Amino acid sequence: MTSVNDNSSILKPLTEHFKDYLPLNDEEEALLLPRIVEKKIRRRKFILQEGSVCQHYNFVVQGCFKIYKVDEKGVEHNIQFVTENDWATDIGSFHSEKPSELYIEAMEPSTILQIHKTDLLFLYVNIPKLDRNFRVIIENKFVELQNRLLQSFCYNATERYLAFLEQYPELSKRLPNTQIASYLGITPEFLSKIRRELVSK
Amino acid sequence: MTSVNDNSSILKPLTEHFKDYLPLNDEEEALLLPRIVEKKIRRRKFILQEGSVCQHYNFVVQGCFKIYKVDEKGVEHNIQFVTENDWATDIGSFHSEKPSELYIEAMEPSTILQIHKTDLLFLYVNIPKLDRNFRVIIENKFVELQNRLLQSFCYNATERYLAFLEQYPELSKRLPNTQIASYLGITPEFLSKIRRELVSK
Repeated sequence: MTSVNDNSSILKPLTEHFKDYLPLNDEEEALLLPRIVEKKIRRRKFILQEGSVCQHYNFVVQGCFKIYKVDEKGVEHNIQFVTENDWATDIGSFHSEKPSELYIEAMEPSTILQIHKTDLLFLYVNIPKLDRNFRVIIENKFVELQNRLLQSFCYNATERYLAFLEQYPELSKRLPNTQIASYLGITPEFLSKIRRELVSK
Repeated sequence: MTSVNDNSSILKPLTEHFKDYLPLNDEEEALLLPRIVEKKIRRRKFILQEGSVCQHYNFVVQGCFKIYKVDEKGVEHNIQFVTENDWATDIGSFHSEKPSELYIEAMEPSTILQIHKTDLLFLYVNIPKLDRNFRVIIENKFVELQNRLLQSFCYNATERYLAFLEQYPELSKRLPNTQIASYLGITPEFLSKIRRELVSK
C-alpha cells in the first residue's frame, strides 16, 4: 500500500530464491533491499557485451537470456540459457575485472534484479550466509557446465538435444530453432531432422 | 618433535592454501586437523571410479591427477588435470550422492589430503569462513571450466594447445603426449605435428 511496501515487494523473488538455500531474516533483507535495482530489459537488449567488464550479478525474475561468445569468424556459440529464478553473469570478468569475452542478451522481454559488485562485496561481509548461498549456487552452475562439457565430448547431436530438453524443459517452446541449434553446435536444419526422427520413433 | 607436532604438520599445505583466501586461526585449524586424512596414492591408482559416489574433497599436496570420462565406445576424454595446491573432486556426485560418471586417476605418485563429506558439512557449519573460501575456489574452477568450453567451441587445435600451455605451464613436461592429446580432443600424432610447427615458427 505504502511506497515502502511497494519497494520491498521488488525483493520478493530474490528472498524466495534464497529460501532454497539459507533464508534471509528481516535484518538481512533490509540490508539487501537498497542494494538491488530492478530493471526491465527489452528483447534483443544486452546486459553484457564483449569487451565490457561485467559489474553486476543479474537475477532473472522474468524472461530468458542467452550467454554466448562470437568467434573470429563471427559465429555465435550459445554456452548457456538463463531463465526465471537463476543468475546471468560472467563470473570470470566480474571477479578479474577484465573485459568479458561474452554477450548476455535478452531473448524475451525480461525483468532482472541487479546487484553491483561493490554492493555484493558489502553484502558478503555483512550477510555471511550469502557466502554459503552463492557457494551452493555456483557449485550447481559448475555441475551444469561440466555436464555440458561432457556432453559436447561424448554425446551425439540427438543425445545432446535430449539432454537439452531435460535441462530446460520449458525452453524448447520458448526459443527459436536457431538458438537451440547454436547451443547444440549444429545447424537449424539438422535440429529439424533430429526432431522429425524423434517424433517418428 | 612430538607426535602431535608431526600430526599437525600434515595440515600445513592446506592452511597455506587457505592463506590465499581467508586464513584459518588456531581454533579453526584445531577443528580441521582431526577431519583430514593424508593418503599416498600410487601412480595409476583411482581415487574415484565411474559408478561410485564421490564422498571426499581431495586436496592435492604432491602429484598430478586426471579427471576423465569414458564414452560408450571406450574412448577417454580428459576434462581436467589437477596438480599441487588444488582440489580433485566430482562436485556433482559429491552433492547429489548419485554415482559419478567420472574417473579420477593419479598420473604420478601423489599425496592428497581427504575430507569426507560428513566432515566437510561439519566444517562448513563450524568454520563459516570455509563457505567464503570454497565459494571463491569453486568460482575459479567455474571460470576455468567455462574457458575450456569456450575453447572447445571456438579455438582450433593449435590455439587449444597454446591455451593448455598457459593454464598448466608445468604439465607439458610432466604428462605423456597421449594424455595431453586426449585433453585437447586430438590424436597424439596431430599433437606432435602441432608441436613441430610451433618449434619451426
